Amino acid sequence: MAEARAPSHLISLHELKPSQVDDLLELSMRIKRQPRKASLAGKTVGLLFFRGSLRTRTSFEAAMTQLGGNTINLSAASDFWELESVEGSVMDGRAPEHVKDAAAVLSCYVSALAIRPKPAGTSWSVDRRDAEIRTWARYAKVPVINMESALWHPLQALADLMTLKEALGELRGKRLTFTWTHSPTPASPAAVHSLLLAALAQGMHVRVTAPAGYELDGEVLSQAQAVGEEHGSKLETSSSMQDAARGAHVIYARSWHSLEDYGNATLAASRRARTSGWMVDERLLALGDGAQLMHAMPVRRNLEVSDAVLDGPRSLVVRQAENRLHSQKAVLSLLLGG
Amino acid sequence: MAEARAPSHLISLHELKPSQVDDLLELSMRIKRQPRKASLAGKTVGLLFFRGSLRTRTSFEAAMTQLGGNTINLSAASDFWELESVEGSVMDGRAPEHVKDAAAVLSCYVSALAIRPKPAGTSWSVDRRDAEIRTWARYAKVPVINMESALWHPLQALADLMTLKEALGELRGKRLTFTWTHSPTPASPAAVHSLLLAALAQGMHVRVTAPAGYELDGEVLSQAQAVGEEHGSKLETSSSMQDAARGAHVIYARSWHSLEDYGNATLAASRRARTSGWMVDERLLALGDGAQLMHAMPVRRNLEVSDAVLDGPRSLVVRQAENRLHSQKAVLSLLLGG
Amino acid sequence: MAEARAPSHLISLHELKPSQVDDLLELSMRIKRQPRKASLAGKTVGLLFFRGSLRTRTSFEAAMTQLGGNTINLSAASDFWELESVEGSVMDGRAPEHVKDAAAVLSCYVSALAIRPKPAGTSWSVDRRDAEIRTWARYAKVPVINMESALWHPLQALADLMTLKEALGELRGKRLTFTWTHSPTPASPAAVHSLLLAALAQGMHVRVTAPAGYELDGEVLSQAQAVGEEHGSKLETSSSMQDAARGAHVIYARSWHSLEDYGNATLAASRRARTSGWMVDERLLALGDGAQLMHAMPVRRNLEVSDAVLDGPRSLVVRQAENRLHSQKAVLSLLLGG
Repeated sequence: MAEARAPSHLISLHELKPSQVDDLLELSMRIKRQPRKASLAGKTVGLLFFRGSLRTRTSFEAAMTQLGGNTINLSAASDFWELESVEGSVMDGRAPEHVKDAAAVLSCYVSALAIRPKPAGTSWSVDRRDAEIRTWARYAKVPVINMESALWHPLQALADLMTLKEALGELRGKRLTFTWTHSPTPASPAAVHSLLLAALAQGMHVRVTAPAGYELDGEVLSQAQAVGEEHGSKLETSSSMQDAARGAHVIYARSWHSLEDYGNATLAASRRARTSGWMVDERLLALGDGAQLMHAMPVRRNLEVSDAVLDGPRSLVVRQAENRLHSQKAVLSLLLGG
Repeated sequence: MAEARAPSHLISLHELKPSQVDDLLELSMRIKRQPRKASLAGKTVGLLFFRGSLRTRTSFEAAMTQLGGNTINLSAASDFWELESVEGSVMDGRAPEHVKDAAAVLSCYVSALAIRPKPAGTSWSVDRRDAEIRTWARYAKVPVINMESALWHPLQALADLMTLKEALGELRGKRLTFTWTHSPTPASPAAVHSLLLAALAQGMHVRVTAPAGYELDGEVLSQAQAVGEEHGSKLETSSSMQDAARGAHVIYARSWHSLEDYGNATLAASRRARTSGWMVDERLLALGDGAQLMHAMPVRRNLEVSDAVLDGPRSLVVRQAENRLHSQKAVLSLLLGG
Repeated sequence: MAEARAPSHLISLHELKPSQVDDLLELSMRIKRQPRKASLAGKTVGLLFFRGSLRTRTSFEAAMTQLGGNTINLSAASDFWELESVEGSVMDGRAPEHVKDAAAVLSCYVSALAIRPKPAGTSWSVDRRDAEIRTWARYAKVPVINMESALWHPLQALADLMTLKEALGELRGKRLTFTWTHSPTPASPAAVHSLLLAALAQGMHVRVTAPAGYELDGEVLSQAQAVGEEHGSKLETSSSMQDAARGAHVIYARSWHSLEDYGNATLAASRRARTSGWMVDERLLALGDGAQLMHAMPVRRNLEVSDAVLDGPRSLVVRQAENRLHSQKAVLSLLLGG
């Protein structure tokens, strides 16, 4: 993604070369030690939020402005309208503008576009294609940065990888367990998908545990399997939190919605009602090997993770959030050539 | 508008002296070739959006921040309230604040106010007065910039004029045709009004074609007639797209609402339903004299203009949009003395 | 509040030492004479608006950006969600995130947090505790600045104090009268509470006049009494506008809601209906000793204050608003060490 001139995008972390990920991590840590200033003066990034955000928006705006640049925050709620994304359509419906035109025009004004699309929420097999952000990337003449699509969340995964390296040093052979947690408002599996591939590519052994019906995306799991084989790392799944926690160096808690019930709120709610007890507490943490806790936030206290764990010395959650700032500065520096 | 100290406004392009328009165009082109930096450092422009915007907001924020300044984006949806604009009224209604107070106060904080008012939409003879933005201009102690009122859209017209000059060189004697296009969500005629006068003042011959009931504002047409006589340029209207396209150097497509049915959604919809076929396609373009396409966007593809024309080599629409950035930098530089 | 490193907050003006208030006022006036530039380059302030604002938001953003820094504007309407503030709760309700987590995370991204909370509006004895902003202050690792809570409005009071000093010179012994005014949309008494204590601490004699049922907060009045005794200044209350206006050097008009009827819209409306005539006009102003008018805005013309007074030479209202900019620059400079 750092080649000069030719715009390139950041849609998912695993589409980068391993050396590019290493470069990003190294730069992230250098920026954290010694913040850069004003290297992006005069540059502007357009932020397009098709759904809301607190952490991503604040850390992204802070990253850009602290590098001397500017952001323009566009939110679907007030600043723009529905956009057509089908090629060749006769636009007599609700959308008054085509993504290809919006992308071409915004490319004249800004140095990059950071986008959080809003999946339609009806069919997982459709939404998992990430058609919207890929259409933006196809037509934009500036880099497009994914701020969490249906399938991937590369910015979160990059910050998480940085946090893992800070906490564990060399990652090869270390054990990471993703555990599903109960929440009335589950997140998307995107952050877990992205870190799953990235951690296996670093040689970590990974376990995923979730109740029946909360399996991760099948194709992502196959990709993960292949990445693991290539890098000599193991991927296991388990339906027991306790089994999965045993010996883990890091337990990564996250609530994600059921892909099986995707688009069916009634089924989803009834399945979720049968999954109490999926919470990370001190007892679970104690099963690990000096296990530390990660979570991408927002976190529902005493439902997903207990206060004692979140406020205790083994929690990495605030550091993960902080590292969003540093690693996004690295992404922006590399993409915008600062 | 460039005199020092005395604040002056940009409400409509034709209120400037011709030499001021020329200065603006020249500066726009100079800035496009060699972007200025940081000349407006420490300056702030307040953006007041009483209705939404994508292109105007992004290009305006980008223009200001790339010149080293800042914008404060205020939108009626979330940041402020209804404002009273009648002089002397007893304010026991919904509006808790008078425009004269808001204008006086905001003038203390920012170096200019850029405003997109929201016409009431009931009576054209009332809305065409642009009372709201003129009240702001009367009470503000800093320059007020019109980001599209009911009657005028000077920033679009300036970018369009710049695009015409880039595409055609000397404009005197060249032929520009405005053609109405069909859309379920027509725009306002403001952009056409502004460019109509500006193009005639440059010596262009102008034709306007639209179905019955979609005539432009009568007083603007009279003004245009007078401008044409002064500058030796012709203004013609026609009810035939084909006749109007013949020999044109530029065809400017735009959907605008009927001023006859203004404020009556039922009549407007029924009239609009009888106007299919008003689309610019390659056949129409071929009637011109090497005709190029312009459109102020958003554009409904294959309804207003065909994909083949929009994506073809004769389309100037993205360049028009890009020139918003450069020409707005020129406006800001001149008004804010950078 | 100016000590290095240890973050300290600005929740209410009277919690500062008198010498700190004096320092702030002096710096405000110095900045007004000679605006500073770029002293806060690279610093970012997060603005959290749980309810809307025009003056505060614009003056705050302008203050920060004119000092070379940046703001990130987060509004409850579109950018974030309900936050839990009770310690130890099981978060299975609507709020997906706890204030302690949001505060810890945002502290990683920005140099300060400026917050306008939204009181629940049900019980004054609950809302007057300002629990929300104090929870933010407890968990934030950066300074928290109060942009108007239920009880206090320190930024308004600081600008008002500056305006009083500019208008009257030495404040000791001068007479300030707060008079309640009629409005269908009364403000909160927070601005009056803050200035009441600050003016008494400067040695001003203060009168408060309001219809029955519109008394200020009882504990604030007791505090004010004590401040007056300490500084040799008098506090009087009166139910007659005319009596209270007699001999005043400044009449400060403000509409505030009844604390007695707090949370009961029906009672509040019926009480308000019985209070016409509470308006400041030239006749009332003439009762003072060359009295000048102050009002924190927004002001309902010819209902709260007559046009003749607002537009006349004795009105300080625009200057008050302007001084928000300068005094907030002073606050930011001291808190962020520029």
